[in-house]
Amino acid sequence: MWGIELQRKNEVSLARQIYQVMRDQMTTGQLKPGEALPATRVMAKQLSVSRNTVYEAYEMLSAEGYLVTRQGSQTRVAEGLRLEKPAPVREDLSSSVQPAYEYLADFRTGQPDLQRFPRHLWLQLLRTATESFPAKQWGYTGPEGLPDLREELAAWLFRSRGLVVHPQDIFITAGATQALHLLAELLFEEGREILVEDPCHIGMLHVLQGKGFKIRPIPVDNHGIQTQYLDGSNACAAYVTPSHQFPLGGILPAGRRAELIQFARDNDLYLIEDDYDSEFRYKGTPVAPLCSMDPGRVIYVGTFSKILFPAIRIGYVVLPRQLQTRWRHLRTHTDVQNPPFEQAALAEYLRTRKLDRHVQKMRKLYGQRRQTLLQMFEEVFGKTWSALGDAAGLHIVLQFPGMTFDQTFAQHCKECGIYITPVEYHSIHKGMHLDKLLLGYGHLEADEIRKGILLLHKQMG
Amino acid sequence: MWGIELQRKNEVSLARQIYQVMRDQMTTGQLKPGEALPATRVMAKQLSVSRNTVYEAYEMLSAEGYLVTRQGSQTRVAEGLRLEKPAPVREDLSSSVQPAYEYLADFRTGQPDLQRFPRHLWLQLLRTATESFPAKQWGYTGPEGLPDLREELAAWLFRSRGLVVHPQDIFITAGATQALHLLAELLFEEGREILVEDPCHIGMLHVLQGKGFKIRPIPVDNHGIQTQYLDGSNACAAYVTPSHQFPLGGILPAGRRAELIQFARDNDLYLIEDDYDSEFRYKGTPVAPLCSMDPGRVIYVGTFSKILFPAIRIGYVVLPRQLQTRWRHLRTHTDVQNPPFEQAALAEYLRTRKLDRHVQKMRKLYGQRRQTLLQMFEEVFGKTWSALGDAAGLHIVLQFPGMTFDQTFAQHCKECGIYITPVEYHSIHKGMHLDKLLLGYGHLEADEIRKGILLLHKQMG
Repeated sequence: MWGIELQRKNEVSLARQIYQVMRDQMTTGQLKPGEALPATRVMAKQLSVSRNTVYEAYEMLSAEGYLVTRQGSQTRVAEGLRLEKPAPVREDLSSSVQPAYEYLADFRTGQPDLQRFPRHLWLQLLRTATESFPAKQWGYTGPEGLPDLREELAAWLFRSRGLVVHPQDIFITAGATQALHLLAELLFEEGREILVEDPCHIGMLHVLQGKGFKIRPIPVDNHGIQTQYLDGSNACAAYVTPSHQFPLGGILPAGRRAELIQFARDNDLYLIEDDYDSEFRYKGTPVAPLCSMDPGRVIYVGTFSKILFPAIRIGYVVLPRQLQTRWRHLRTHTDVQNPPFEQAALAEYLRTRKLDRHVQKMRKLYGQRRQTLLQMFEEVFGKTWSALGDAAGLHIVLQFPGMTFDQTFAQHCKECGIYITPVEYHSIHKGMHLDKLLLGYGHLEADEIRKGILLLHKQMG
Repeated sequence: MWGIELQRKNEVSLARQIYQVMRDQMTTGQLKPGEALPATRVMAKQLSVSRNTVYEAYEMLSAEGYLVTRQGSQTRVAEGLRLEKPAPVREDLSSSVQPAYEYLADFRTGQPDLQRFPRHLWLQLLRTATESFPAKQWGYTGPEGLPDLREELAAWLFRSRGLVVHPQDIFITAGATQALHLLAELLFEEGREILVEDPCHIGMLHVLQGKGFKIRPIPVDNHGIQTQYLDGSNACAAYVTPSHQFPLGGILPAGRRAELIQFARDNDLYLIEDDYDSEFRYKGTPVAPLCSMDPGRVIYVGTFSKILFPAIRIGYVVLPRQLQTRWRHLRTHTDVQNPPFEQAALAEYLRTRKLDRHVQKMRKLYGQRRQTLLQMFEEVFGKTWSALGDAAGLHIVLQFPGMTFDQTFAQHCKECGIYITPVEYHSIHKGMHLDKLLLGYGHLEADEIRKGILLLHKQMG
C-alpha cells in the first residue's frame, strides 16, 4: 500500500521508514498537494503496524510542514512541496584516488621514528593527566591553551634553548601549520608582500599563498637566508627558518641574524621564526632563537610533530603582546581551541622531564642514522657528491654536481619504489637547485637506509 | 670575570649560561668586534668551571657565527653583531584581562551538562580505542579523518536521522566552527554575498565576516528563515539552521525547505546546513536534514560539542563530491588533521551504541529542565511573556511584549551576577527583536533554574 515497503529488521524505526517514503513521494509529486491521507487506523491496518507508529510518522510529517491537518477534517498533503528535478551534479574527476605506491626506499621528510616513540608511556600519561580533569575542563576553556602546558613550555624553552618567555605569551596551536595559517591571517595586508626563503617548504608556501600574500623569495645559501638580498619596500612580514633552514640545512650565522633583525626594525615588519626541528642538532646544543634578540618583533613558532609524533597536533607560538588580542579573536573564530587531553599529557611529559630524556635518546639515534647515511653514500657513490648544511634535523641535502633532479626524476623513482624529493620541488625560482636531492632519514633503520641507497644508486647509475 | 655570574644550581647548563652572557655582550656592544677571547684554559680557571664547559660555550658561539677562529690565531668576536636599541614596542592595552564575574544565574547558551557526562566511561573508551593503535596511526593519516569514525558516523546519521551518506563523503573537522571556517574559504568569491538568517549566531557571523563575505541578512520568524525574502542575485552561498533556527528556535516547514532548495538550484548556490543540536527535540524524532533533499547542493555540518562535550573538538561536514579535492588541500594547509585519539574514542562510543543511550538520557533530562524553566517563568512572571520556536535544543527564546532588552540591560544583569543574552545581540538589523531574551538551560539543575529566574525577576521588576 502507498508504495511503502517496511523493513522490520532495520535500525531505522518503522515510523521513520514510513515518514521517509511519504516525504519522497511528496517532493517528487507522486503524492499531490491537497491529497487526503488515510486515517491512522486505516493506514496502520494496511501496513500491519501499530496505530502509534503511523501516528508518529504523521506527526513528523506535520511538524516539518509536509502535512496539514485542520480541525475536524482529514490530514492532507501541504502545498508547494514539489521540487523540480535537480540539475546534474558535476562530478569531480580529479578526486579519483591517486595510484598507491609501495615504497622500498622511503626518504620522505619530516617523519620522526614512530616505532621508537614510547607509545605506551604516552597513553599512560594521557590517562593519569586526564582522569582528574574537573568537569569544566570538558567545556570551552579559551583559545590560549591549558595553563599547565603553557607553564611547562615556558620552563622547557628556557632550559633547552635559554629562551626567556612568559607563559602568558605562549599560545597553543593545532601544530605549526595552523600557527602559520593563523599568522598569515593576522599579518596579511592587501597588496603587501611576505618575504620567504628560496627554497622554502612548499606546504608552508601554500599556506601563505592561500591567504593571498604576494611572495618575494630571498635566495638561500649554505648558511641560510642571504641577508644582502633582503628587500622590504613592500613587505609586511618575513617567514624564516634560522635554526635549521628548510631544506638546505644551514644554521643562520650571528651576523646575518643581526642584519635580519635590523632589517625588520627598519622596515617595520614582523619575522616569523619557524623552529621546526632544532632539538636534533648533532654538534653542540640547540641554537638560541632569533626571538630572544627582539621578542617584540619576532614571532616564534614551534611544534611537537617531530619531537614526539605528528598526530599529537600540538604546536605553539610565542606572540608579541600587541598581537595577542587579535590572535584570541581569530583562533576563537577558526576552531576555538585544542582538545585538552593531548595538552595535559604533554604538560605531564614535560613536567616529569621524560620528554627531555626522549629527545636526548632520539638525538643520539638520529645522529647515528645520519652517519650511516653519509657513510653509505660514500661507499656507494664515491666522491661524486657533497652534503650541504649543518649536522641537524631529520633530513639532509646532497649535491651531485652535473646531475639533474627534477619532477620527472622523482616520478621515475616513485615508479621504482623510491620516495625521494628533488630540492627543486621546494624551489620558487626554478632551475637554481637542480643538482640537489633532499632525503629524510629520521624514520629509517640503518638497514633500510642501506637498501634505499643501493636502490637509488641502481636508479641513477 | 667578564661579567659572567654563573648559577650552579640552575637547570640551564653552565656552558649555556656562559654563551648567553657573552652573546648579549656582543649584541649590545660591550664585547667589541675583533676583540680576542681568552683561551679556554684561562677562561675555565677564571670561572672555576671545567675546560670542556668553556669549550662547549665557545663552540656554540662559533656555530652561530658570534666568534671567528682562524687557524693558529686567537678566537675573536665577529664583525657586525651589534644591534641598535629596539624601538619601543606598542603595548596592547586592550588585552588587559576582562573583569571576571561570579554568576549566580548563568543562562549562557550552547552549554551541555558536563556534570552528567560519563567522563569515566569516555576515558575508558579513549584508553581501549587507542592502546592498540599501530605506529603509523601516530603519524600523518590524512585530512579526511579516521576511517572507523567516518563509517560509524554514516551509520549513526542513518539510524538517527534517516540520512543516507557514504562514509567517503564525511570529513571530520575540529568542531563546527572550523567546518564553517573552511567552508567560508572554499565557497568565497570576491564581491559575492552570503545569505544568513537574521538573527544568526554572532560567532558564526564573525567567521563569515572574517573571510570577507558581504552579508545579506534574511529575516526569520517563528518557523525559521522567511523564504519569500530570499534574494540570490549576487550570492554564492547561504548559511541556514533549518533543524532548529538559532536563536529563535523554529523548525523550518517542508514548504519553505522546498523553496530554499529550489532557490539554491535556480541561483546556483550552495546551502550550508548547520545542524548543531537537533538530537534534542522534545516532541517526535529529529527532523530530516535539508541535505537529504539535494546532497549535491547542501553541505551538512554537525558537531559533538552539544551531544557530548565542547572540548572534544570534533565536528564533521557531509561534502558534495565536487568540493572534496579542494577541501582536502585546504584542510591540509590549515591544520592538517584532527588528532586521532578523540576520534577513535568517539568511533567506539558510536559503535557500542553507548552514544545513542547517552543522547536518549540527556534528551529526557533537558526536556525536563525546559519544562521546569517554563513553569517557573509562569509562576514568577505570570502571563507577561510567551515562548518562541519549537520544543528543541538547549536554549529558548522568550518574548516580553513592551520590554526592551539591549546591551545595557545585559551589562546591568552581568553586574548583578546574571548572564543572559538579549536576542538583539545576535541580530544583524538592530531593533527588530528588542523584546526577546535568549536563555540557555541545558547545563542548569532545576534549582539553579529556579534561583536564576527569581533573580532575573528581581532585576526586571
